[in-house]
Amino acid sequence: MLYIDLNCDMGENFGVYSLGNDEEIMPYVTSINVACGFHASDPANMRKTVKLAKKYGVAVGAHPSLPDLVGFGRRAMSVTPDEIKADFIYQIGALQAFCHAEGVVMQHVKDHGAITDMANNDLAIAIAMAEAIQAVDSNLYMVCLANSLMVKAAKTVGIPYVEEAYADRAYTDTGSLVSRKQANAVIHDAATVRKRVLGMMKEKQILSINGSVLPINAQTICLHGDTPGAIALAKELRSSLESSGVTVQPFGKSLRSA
Amino acid sequence: MLYIDLNCDMGENFGVYSLGNDEEIMPYVTSINVACGFHASDPANMRKTVKLAKKYGVAVGAHPSLPDLVGFGRRAMSVTPDEIKADFIYQIGALQAFCHAEGVVMQHVKDHGAITDMANNDLAIAIAMAEAIQAVDSNLYMVCLANSLMVKAAKTVGIPYVEEAYADRAYTDTGSLVSRKQANAVIHDAATVRKRVLGMMKEKQILSINGSVLPINAQTICLHGDTPGAIALAKELRSSLESSGVTVQPFGKSLRSA
Amino acid sequence: MLYIDLNCDMGENFGVYSLGNDEEIMPYVTSINVACGFHASDPANMRKTVKLAKKYGVAVGAHPSLPDLVGFGRRAMSVTPDEIKADFIYQIGALQAFCHAEGVVMQHVKDHGAITDMANNDLAIAIAMAEAIQAVDSNLYMVCLANSLMVKAAKTVGIPYVEEAYADRAYTDTGSLVSRKQANAVIHDAATVRKRVLGMMKEKQILSINGSVLPINAQTICLHGDTPGAIALAKELRSSLESSGVTVQPFGKSLRSA
Amino acid sequence: MLYIDLNCDMGENFGVYSLGNDEEIMPYVTSINVACGFHASDPANMRKTVKLAKKYGVAVGAHPSLPDLVGFGRRAMSVTPDEIKADFIYQIGALQAFCHAEGVVMQHVKDHGAITDMANNDLAIAIAMAEAIQAVDSNLYMVCLANSLMVKAAKTVGIPYVEEAYADRAYTDTGSLVSRKQANAVIHDAATVRKRVLGMMKEKQILSINGSVLPINAQTICLHGDTPGAIALAKELRSSLESSGVTVQPFGKSLRSA
Repeated sequence: MLYIDLNCDMGENFGVYSLGNDEEIMPYVTSINVACGFHASDPANMRKTVKLAKKYGVAVGAHPSLPDLVGFGRRAMSVTPDEIKADFIYQIGALQAFCHAEGVVMQHVKDHGAITDMANNDLAIAIAMAEAIQAVDSNLYMVCLANSLMVKAAKTVGIPYVEEAYADRAYTDTGSLVSRKQANAVIHDAATVRKRVLGMMKEKQILSINGSVLPINAQTICLHGDTPGAIALAKELRSSLESSGVTVQPFGKSLRSA
Repeated sequence: MLYIDLNCDMGENFGVYSLGNDEEIMPYVTSINVACGFHASDPANMRKTVKLAKKYGVAVGAHPSLPDLVGFGRRAMSVTPDEIKADFIYQIGALQAFCHAEGVVMQHVKDHGAITDMANNDLAIAIAMAEAIQAVDSNLYMVCLANSLMVKAAKTVGIPYVEEAYADRAYTDTGSLVSRKQANAVIHDAATVRKRVLGMMKEKQILSINGSVLPINAQTICLHGDTPGAIALAKELRSSLESSGVTVQPFGKSLRSA
Repeated sequence: MLYIDLNCDMGENFGVYSLGNDEEIMPYVTSINVACGFHASDPANMRKTVKLAKKYGVAVGAHPSLPDLVGFGRRAMSVTPDEIKADFIYQIGALQAFCHAEGVVMQHVKDHGAITDMANNDLAIAIAMAEAIQAVDSNLYMVCLANSLMVKAAKTVGIPYVEEAYADRAYTDTGSLVSRKQANAVIHDAATVRKRVLGMMKEKQILSINGSVLPINAQTICLHGDTPGAIALAKELRSSLESSGVTVQPFGKSLRSA
Repeated sequence: MLYIDLNCDMGENFGVYSLGNDEEIMPYVTSINVACGFHASDPANMRKTVKLAKKYGVAVGAHPSLPDLVGFGRRAMSVTPDEIKADFIYQIGALQAFCHAEGVVMQHVKDHGAITDMANNDLAIAIAMAEAIQAVDSNLYMVCLANSLMVKAAKTVGIPYVEEAYADRAYTDTGSLVSRKQANAVIHDAATVRKRVLGMMKEKQILSINGSVLPINAQTICLHGDTPGAIALAKELRSSLESSGVTVQPFGKSLRSA
């Protein structure tokens, strides 16, 4: 029996500003990562997004980031592990309160933006993130880029984790994502995306941009909600996965029942 | 048997900035109200303050406010009940995460600044605050100005609450605090403060600035940590209360064992 | 000879977030009000917007507001006149620097959001705004709602000002705008809008929502850039004004050559 | 004839928070660097600080930084040159408006915090800062760490600049400041400080921490206002410089009359 989770970033509106198409993509994903006010969102939007997730039966996770609204959390900052730990406890706790208010059990934490690269290059940062998750709720899954230093951090700290793959992004020979600045970094063809995802699931491997075989064991696939064609791609991917006999559901459900 | 709680605002540092004398006053109080990042504080300071409270065995509450760092939450804003509810859930949840991280059970929520006057003049605001508290954790006590609209809100929503009195502030004939802009609004004499507090506890009443008798039933007394002589006053009040046979402890302890 | 200016709020993007259709409406207006970072915008967006205005030969003004990004400056705050004066000097100065950098002479200041109502109900606030404008550059025009307390403030302080009318909004019998919450507050029919604007210009009067005749002497008409049909309405209004022999140009140009 | 300027960071209060002893150190310095709201300060404090400088006849400069209030501008961020240019134009313009309001001519710009190291390691960042200064007012001096990449940037862009030395900090053999984390990085002995400053002025050289002779040609000396003994040190340094026949005055005055 094959299981997969489809996750997407959501709740990135801020005040009067809109970003993404939350309600349109909601029917096709099974987990969402909700911005917590540091790179995007605000309390009213967080509340609205958790309510929306509940309505669609989608699992909820926190999407904490660096404190940089203007830069959308995409600018690296020289923060200490202790600062990141405190910033993450704060953001995860804030979202957890909205989940509790709606009777929703938070499933996971997935970090956002520049802090991801920082964590994948500095184990101390990755461990600080894992410790923050554990401090708030030791049942929360840490969503880690497959084969990354974040996986090592989750294991070191001893918290549940899943590995994540990107459906529409090319990988380098060493398993990191090809920079968006390079040609062919993003895969737009739906058939290719579907084939890659099914390949990852059945053979636990994926081809790099140069044709090398990379081992991969992902429990969740990241979709983008705000790129052109995002909704059509999500719809078609979910439908073809289900036609292929794959159960598409929140990873927490698959893992806890395993 | 007489019980009382002494509470004080704490954790109001921000980044490199210091405010108050948290560690010096900690030995004399039994409950603290921790700023949550909207009018003061930041994640690192919140974490540090909860650790300090744990060290001194002092009960912890959240001290949420309006989103106005420059104005320290002291400027009224025309927020809707829904905005306040979301802002409070966010702040209370953030502090709760730091408490959970330290193995501390949060005791209460006491609002800060201009929102207090707003809530005491607009039941819809007071109810939004009570609902926010209930949404995060229905065991949390709401700290209400004695005899105020906030008490009515706590009863309406059905959450635990305590009534609060001010040791060193004069009251009007209608039971509100005399504005600091008026003469004699603040009482500086330690003996008078002590006498007023014991009077409140034993006779459940207090004299207004004009000599009227006001009924009062307070379970907690608010002390100020940052006024001149604050530490000496706190020390002397606690000591004289204990000499008079009063048990000074967190109100949650007194009420839950009752 | 009849002259009129058409003004529009612009530069309200923030970080990754977009708002409005700046470049599409730019060809039809003659003055723009640029957000200064307190209710919307950020330094990079301000710079970009001033460059855009220069490209289209449109006059630039500052659009300062209350410090409330989440609320888009639309929530009244109990600020003192001194606080508003400092906040406005700061914002106007920041925009002036971007104008200077591009060789653009700033024309005016028009306040944004809740502070407008506050100023039109409290002369001290309106005077603080006028003094802030004068402090930065005594040649700047203050854009005032026609017949309002702001006009009185500009006269009292002794700075240049213009009166502003709304093309697509209904007026009460006392000359204020009909609240958007009421029916018929916004006029959507292009022919009616054009007729009202030409009436204001030729007869210096306008009909209230109840049919009363109100005197009005406006040098600038406010257009909205983000409502449905905004661009078509702006295009059609400008074209019909020009067909009627009206010179549509920045008010500063009309007044300085007068 | 020997001239020197003594500069100090000021206006770093924020809202209710105080930092430094502005008014106490004001009599001993000749130029101040005023925080502009990104790492510290707010509009009301900026206004107050410019008024204070005017009262004491001290020259005013802007002290822009990275957008990080919680981190006091001390955390490096991966900003682009274009972002820094816009952020600096914004901050310098804001301060310039307060200067204009008080009839004070702004003298200089000195950057604050982590951006200094970034600029001294990346010419593109240093040039962005120099271009921002030039864009706002081409008469403003850029204050550069002596012998640094910032000097090169000022020359490249073609704006006036001065070189700055630290009275109480040790230098490495390559002319950078010894990190505060190392022993003997800060010099506390007033006699040594005075001797070093006079040596720099008379011989245009200074000894590194290892005894190497470094060429230096500084027009301004940076004093710290918030370290223990700062005021006594400033007073004693100014007095001994004047006793030695050195004219202590704003560098702008010395250079413009030269």
